Amino acid sequence: MRAALYGGAYDITVGDRPDPQVQLPTDAVVRVSLGCVCGSDMWYFRGQSPHALGPIGHEFIGLVEEVGDDVRELAVGDLVIAPFLWCCGQCRPCRTGWPSNCVNGGSFGNHGHDGGQGEAVRVPYADATLVKVPGGPYGPATMTSLLALSDVMCTGHHAAVSAGVRAGATVAVVGDGAVGLSAVLAARRLGAERIIALSRNASRQAVATEFGATDIVAERGDAAVERVLELTDGFGADAVMECVGTGESMTTAFGVAAVGSVVGAVGVPHGVVVPIDALILRNIGLRGGVAPARTYIPELLPDVLDGTINPGRVFDYQTDLDNVLDAYRAMDERRAIKSVVRMGV
Amino acid sequence: MRAALYGGAYDITVGDRPDPQVQLPTDAVVRVSLGCVCGSDMWYFRGQSPHALGPIGHEFIGLVEEVGDDVRELAVGDLVIAPFLWCCGQCRPCRTGWPSNCVNGGSFGNHGHDGGQGEAVRVPYADATLVKVPGGPYGPATMTSLLALSDVMCTGHHAAVSAGVRAGATVAVVGDGAVGLSAVLAARRLGAERIIALSRNASRQAVATEFGATDIVAERGDAAVERVLELTDGFGADAVMECVGTGESMTTAFGVAAVGSVVGAVGVPHGVVVPIDALILRNIGLRGGVAPARTYIPELLPDVLDGTINPGRVFDYQTDLDNVLDAYRAMDERRAIKSVVRMGV
Repeated sequence: MRAALYGGAYDITVGDRPDPQVQLPTDAVVRVSLGCVCGSDMWYFRGQSPHALGPIGHEFIGLVEEVGDDVRELAVGDLVIAPFLWCCGQCRPCRTGWPSNCVNGGSFGNHGHDGGQGEAVRVPYADATLVKVPGGPYGPATMTSLLALSDVMCTGHHAAVSAGVRAGATVAVVGDGAVGLSAVLAARRLGAERIIALSRNASRQAVATEFGATDIVAERGDAAVERVLELTDGFGADAVMECVGTGESMTTAFGVAAVGSVVGAVGVPHGVVVPIDALILRNIGLRGGVAPARTYIPELLPDVLDGTINPGRVFDYQTDLDNVLDAYRAMDERRAIKSVVRMGV
Repeated sequence: MRAALYGGAYDITVGDRPDPQVQLPTDAVVRVSLGCVCGSDMWYFRGQSPHALGPIGHEFIGLVEEVGDDVRELAVGDLVIAPFLWCCGQCRPCRTGWPSNCVNGGSFGNHGHDGGQGEAVRVPYADATLVKVPGGPYGPATMTSLLALSDVMCTGHHAAVSAGVRAGATVAVVGDGAVGLSAVLAARRLGAERIIALSRNASRQAVATEFGATDIVAERGDAAVERVLELTDGFGADAVMECVGTGESMTTAFGVAAVGSVVGAVGVPHGVVVPIDALILRNIGLRGGVAPARTYIPELLPDVLDGTINPGRVFDYQTDLDNVLDAYRAMDERRAIKSVVRMGV
């Protein structure tokens, strides 16, 4: 099969890989329909974080092509969503709702494991990992929204859940990348009444507004904090979603958080120093982390299928496997919010 | 009146202060029955944190001596508990349960305000600030337990509430000072089944056990983490209370926290660096801060009055105002867990 391969900073090519096979009776092989590029892929693309050479891409949806003898919940031909990490479903983290911390888990598209930016993937613990999509076939808009459940929408939802977003709340979202926009959508879905999105980019502001943002703050840093405080009678937001992962974004998040609120953080941290004095003096909590996507997908899936939410709107660039490098470049150069990589014909 | 006065590191004397008077119609004057020394007082006593010169002590119980014309809930002669910060009861933080972040609030025993280590205190916003104790008179054991509600027990309770302690949980408490011991008691009261207390001091271990600790870990640092993980099948505690506020204690707290758990932190931070990678990768939250004592006192008071909890057991040293310096020294030299300062005859 053919797959995108990481060769170092800015070096992504398409090459041949062995066709995935069922190796263990709990495995499935999935023929990828759609893959995509994650904001977190930019770190290694730009050479800012290490990543194993070889297959890449941790988000995908596709059709089950082969199942092992112990796979009970899936059949050949099923349309499935893969959370970005596989999980065993049996260990204590899995049983307590934290499959992203599965003790037997791992990431697609790293350390030699098949990635979502390739034609097919061997999926360990297929029953526990994959979520079958009922019904279908679905049109392109629904398919990209299903793809968004693989990571980005679940990660935005995790920011909102971690921040404790409640019906009627005033919330703020720091970060206008695909995750930040998904957090806006998640907050709206959870009933937030006022959603302040920090964004200075017109196309991202448009998606934020479509997703339910009621206020856009284009300022940055201290000026952004000041503006959000103005918008909230000086008290700050009831819940804050931190969707970047830098020192500045974390400082901004704490700056706009009301006394007693929680910052829900999902950005991969790079140079983050938690403002512990603000945390203690103002009773502002910090929760979040690697989203338990496998827990969230079944909860969000019905809302995608009935059109209540359209998280696929974060994808504004599409290409095919041959041009996967363009998918990265478009995001690196901020021409795209998030890129889809179509597989097959 | 006479009161303890801070003059700099290790310099505490007893001197004369003007008798407190009602200055505003919402004030009350309280004649102090019992004051005490807080673990956080050690920071300025040792010269490690700044503190205004003059009156000190933010914890006290006493009898109402005079009330302003607008005070409705209190009468002369009432026995009252003062939370360590006064609060207006009207602002948004007060209305949302965060009186310790009152926009009109302030601390007793700092910046020239009367302190609990003195014979009398002017209390602003008396109705909102003070909690009347029904019934009485009470014996010495109950009186010291009422005194504990002024700060230390509420702070331990805040650690437990912030960490999300639930019935049946396995929890760990980092810190065996009076706050850590109170956190043990609070966790027990909230139904924790297994309570692992980190302590290497025999007298503190005894109080921890009396308060409900089921396991004592005498190791420190990495060895303590290893031991707690051994005790919890390698997964760590469902909830962790961080009651010290140093870099080492925070590292230990995250080290013993299970995936998806929350560290409830109430120590005044000194040199704390939050391990953000552990927080994000293992989905460990961090909540806590300055305890909203005024919110908690009415909830905890019935349990003190009926003897369900005896938080006053953290006091193991008593002296009078003339010997207030000894009260500090006993704690500084770790001869005492926490010191009571008796007022009057």
